[in-house]
Amino acid sequence: MPVLQPIVNIAELLYQKGITDVVVSPGSRSAPLTLAVVRHPHLRVRVMADERSAGFVALGIAQQRQNPVAIICTSGSAVYNLAPAVAEAYFQQIPLLLLTADRPHEWLHQQDGQTIDQVHVFGNQVKRSYDLPADYTHPDSRWFIERSVNEAISLSRLYPAGPVHINVPLREPFYPAANESFQAERVRLIHTLPGSPTLSPETWHMLLRDWDTSERKLIAVGQLPRNQALLDVLTKISNELGVPIIGEIVSNLPVNDRFITHTDTFLSGISEQQAASLCPDLLITLGNSLLTRNLKTFFRQYPAARHWHIQPVVDRITDSFQSLTTLIPSEPLAFLEKLFADIDYQLFLQGDEDDDSHEFLNRWQQADRKAARLVEQTLSLANQSQYLTDWSAVQLVLEQVPDRSILHLANSMPVRYANLCGLTEQQAVSVSANRGVSGIDGCLSTAVGAALATDQLVTLVIGDVAFFYDRNALWSAPVPPNLRIILLNNDGGHIFRMIDGSSRQPELETYFETPHGYTARNTAADARIQYQIAAKPETLRALLPDFFRPGSQAKLLEIKTDKRINQEQFLAYKTQIKNLYPDN
Amino acid sequence: MPVLQPIVNIAELLYQKGITDVVVSPGSRSAPLTLAVVRHPHLRVRVMADERSAGFVALGIAQQRQNPVAIICTSGSAVYNLAPAVAEAYFQQIPLLLLTADRPHEWLHQQDGQTIDQVHVFGNQVKRSYDLPADYTHPDSRWFIERSVNEAISLSRLYPAGPVHINVPLREPFYPAANESFQAERVRLIHTLPGSPTLSPETWHMLLRDWDTSERKLIAVGQLPRNQALLDVLTKISNELGVPIIGEIVSNLPVNDRFITHTDTFLSGISEQQAASLCPDLLITLGNSLLTRNLKTFFRQYPAARHWHIQPVVDRITDSFQSLTTLIPSEPLAFLEKLFADIDYQLFLQGDEDDDSHEFLNRWQQADRKAARLVEQTLSLANQSQYLTDWSAVQLVLEQVPDRSILHLANSMPVRYANLCGLTEQQAVSVSANRGVSGIDGCLSTAVGAALATDQLVTLVIGDVAFFYDRNALWSAPVPPNLRIILLNNDGGHIFRMIDGSSRQPELETYFETPHGYTARNTAADARIQYQIAAKPETLRALLPDFFRPGSQAKLLEIKTDKRINQEQFLAYKTQIKNLYPDN
Repeated sequence: MPVLQPIVNIAELLYQKGITDVVVSPGSRSAPLTLAVVRHPHLRVRVMADERSAGFVALGIAQQRQNPVAIICTSGSAVYNLAPAVAEAYFQQIPLLLLTADRPHEWLHQQDGQTIDQVHVFGNQVKRSYDLPADYTHPDSRWFIERSVNEAISLSRLYPAGPVHINVPLREPFYPAANESFQAERVRLIHTLPGSPTLSPETWHMLLRDWDTSERKLIAVGQLPRNQALLDVLTKISNELGVPIIGEIVSNLPVNDRFITHTDTFLSGISEQQAASLCPDLLITLGNSLLTRNLKTFFRQYPAARHWHIQPVVDRITDSFQSLTTLIPSEPLAFLEKLFADIDYQLFLQGDEDDDSHEFLNRWQQADRKAARLVEQTLSLANQSQYLTDWSAVQLVLEQVPDRSILHLANSMPVRYANLCGLTEQQAVSVSANRGVSGIDGCLSTAVGAALATDQLVTLVIGDVAFFYDRNALWSAPVPPNLRIILLNNDGGHIFRMIDGSSRQPELETYFETPHGYTARNTAADARIQYQIAAKPETLRALLPDFFRPGSQAKLLEIKTDKRINQEQFLAYKTQIKNLYPDN
Repeated sequence: MPVLQPIVNIAELLYQKGITDVVVSPGSRSAPLTLAVVRHPHLRVRVMADERSAGFVALGIAQQRQNPVAIICTSGSAVYNLAPAVAEAYFQQIPLLLLTADRPHEWLHQQDGQTIDQVHVFGNQVKRSYDLPADYTHPDSRWFIERSVNEAISLSRLYPAGPVHINVPLREPFYPAANESFQAERVRLIHTLPGSPTLSPETWHMLLRDWDTSERKLIAVGQLPRNQALLDVLTKISNELGVPIIGEIVSNLPVNDRFITHTDTFLSGISEQQAASLCPDLLITLGNSLLTRNLKTFFRQYPAARHWHIQPVVDRITDSFQSLTTLIPSEPLAFLEKLFADIDYQLFLQGDEDDDSHEFLNRWQQADRKAARLVEQTLSLANQSQYLTDWSAVQLVLEQVPDRSILHLANSMPVRYANLCGLTEQQAVSVSANRGVSGIDGCLSTAVGAALATDQLVTLVIGDVAFFYDRNALWSAPVPPNLRIILLNNDGGHIFRMIDGSSRQPELETYFETPHGYTARNTAADARIQYQIAAKPETLRALLPDFFRPGSQAKLLEIKTDKRINQEQFLAYKTQIKNLYPDN
């Protein structure tokens, strides 16, 4: 058996365990892994020179496919460059398999290059970390490698999905000899079957009793991928049971006359009395984190008497609003479907058609409609102006973004502006965002990954700091032609001008916003992608239809805005919010 | 006392403990730390948006000043972006103080943004990690903060110098109110006095006996900052005791007729018989890692009977050549000065002027001169050609680099080419390189940091992959005007074409070299630095005098070379090496 055979076999294990994509950064120590996946007939391999980008590209692919993506990098600081993406994947629950080449451990601290302590290098930001042996002449070592890779891939998928690290110490030679085959052998597959938690009839009985005795019920949906079946059951629960369904743009809840999506607007500056009228007796939450502080603050300040959180595994108490009473081990969709069916049946038996039960829902929906009108007014005013603002640009983009396409919202302001605007049900756009750790560091790379994972159009809305920070995403050609970048360039970290505390400091510009004077023209030219620029509403409106047309080249549309006009618009909006509640 | 007072006081502690420079990346959670250092009257604060760059810029400053530099960043993945520089600093023994803002720990896993597990986040790549309390109303907590910062700064300087991490959980509000002073109070300084290890007379006696009974003695110097006193004592030891002194460009050993600096050339393909004639009985090493594999391999294949390694603290056995017999706790300079003095006095007493003792030195020096001639021939041939190669460009640059300036050599090929060429004693150029982990990830940022730390000219020689990888170093204006960048652009990871194993693979171009087609013209334009390009020897020769002239703007000189011509030159050189030993 060739000495590297167990390493070459990893490629076959990836394939057999259902991994289709691998992102590789060049390296010599990692060459056996690289060659193994490149020479595998069924794995798609993407090469990215910057490991930080590579990590987020892999995350973007995995986010779309909801399937683990493998990453291969060489030893040393290369590994640490993956860490930002690893942290985001861990907290966003995105499955990744990190294969890091390493020097055999005996060389640590021996003044040899590219050698750091890679065992458990990602700390608590991975689900588990394996360290393969450097020598595997003994059959038990080969058994350990095969078993560990089987386990690691399965583990990355198990709820909560996340990154799993396999450290791979490798001895020379790294490259096959001229006559060496470097083909995978037959590998042993160990199946880890999926299982779903079920609740006993007694547990259901207790939950239904709590439901019945709670007058005002409310469901809040955190970040979740778009799921039509979930939208359907939430619609039925809202329509038929009169339960307000609250969500944000990252929950993939569309703006319609049913769902409550403008909480960021109408919960801001709400009076105690109004809050009391909106506070539920039973709060049910599902999904990952909520985006906006106003919504989180509302649930914290006005805690529900009962708060159920539904998640498949309940080993960790996530008590985001400091009001959790019950953790329910279930798939949210299955739980809500059964809950609705049970209550619907109960109501049928009772012949109950009490319209009063919708009063609580109506109150939320009225507030939502009022907020929607306020946002509309703010934006229609902006659209009459001769200057684009970041917010009005986002609205125009969201209006024209193609139906059933993918929208990635970068962190900091873009995701917030998009949340204020929303997307309609007819658009059926699938929204993603890196809300695990909410960094600006890999948004562009993540969108590149998303575009690599699909033939649909992927639109990224991103600010200038996040864009230039991560521009190495565009360095490894070719940039996928289905990528569309909307760059909101206000020349700096605009969010600090929006935060009350930082905007008041004399250091705002120099130490927080850090203006740079860059436009993306040169970056786009280097990356060989189409570049256009707009500063006026009519220009943007006119450019968008062609921008969104499919083509053979990725496109970047830079929107130049003035930070002071952005700030004025936002301050005017905040003043308008106060008028929502004239009795305050 | 204002609630954040103990945090504001950290700035004053930095200053009083001798820290002069702070690198800050913008963030809201970290705002109290940022404002504290910015408002301190004596700290120099540099702001960099990309934390990865910020880390290496700080490392570059610290590398030049040989004094800790503080880094401030916000919570979440921002922290992980520092990790590549932290690893390099740890293994290169560069003092850094990492102040990472954090959410209070109770918010971990509560679906709040920018929250990862930051306690011990850098694993074994920092000397120590502190976690400050989030609440400090109790005086013991304030005592803990003050004491920890005192200890951390002292520890970062103690041998081996390195990064120390202070995690700083912070509660809101992060910003001072309008009438709040945000000035440091009086702080308590705790002095940690320096101490040097001394050897007892008995220990010296034993060492001198070993010296006397070793016929062939040899000193090899690993990476060290330029130190004239060290060069002086090494010169005396070589001249008067006939001991070969071996070093590389990163050892800051100049090319002259005394020091042996061409080992990479003449130890390649050496015969067993020749090796035996060069093998010492006593090998003395000092400094950090050696650069070239040929030298390391020689010492491993032909181990000295005795191998002393001199370092101030001996808690870890670094046995780079698998031949170590004695670890000597001493400052290398002090040790060598005393060693020379003792032996010189002994020789004086003995009236010993045995010229035969120089035979071993002569053998090394002859080999060195032969190798120098071979390199010279290779390069003079290249300079007659119409095309520049990376190597011949490096030689032309090294010839003209200003005396007493600073040269930073990027990893991968540039540092190797520079080592083949060398610098003369008259140039007195100070050479640095990131040879701790030897990554390509932060070379440009490190050079920016070096240029910020000094008024001297800082020249960086860097390849295209390392340059574009780290171009965010140039994003935060202004780029220091004393920076000079020599970019060797061969359109890809040229080193893989030089490595025998990878160059033979059909995947070489696509998965290892990864050509990108970029030139630096646009990057330079965006960064507002001067840009020139050269592809021919005479162009480069003509441009260099003006390029090295001081001015108000940083300058980038891109050298376009062809990877195949580079490869041919290197292969021809390797063939020539074989002719060095016609009897092989």
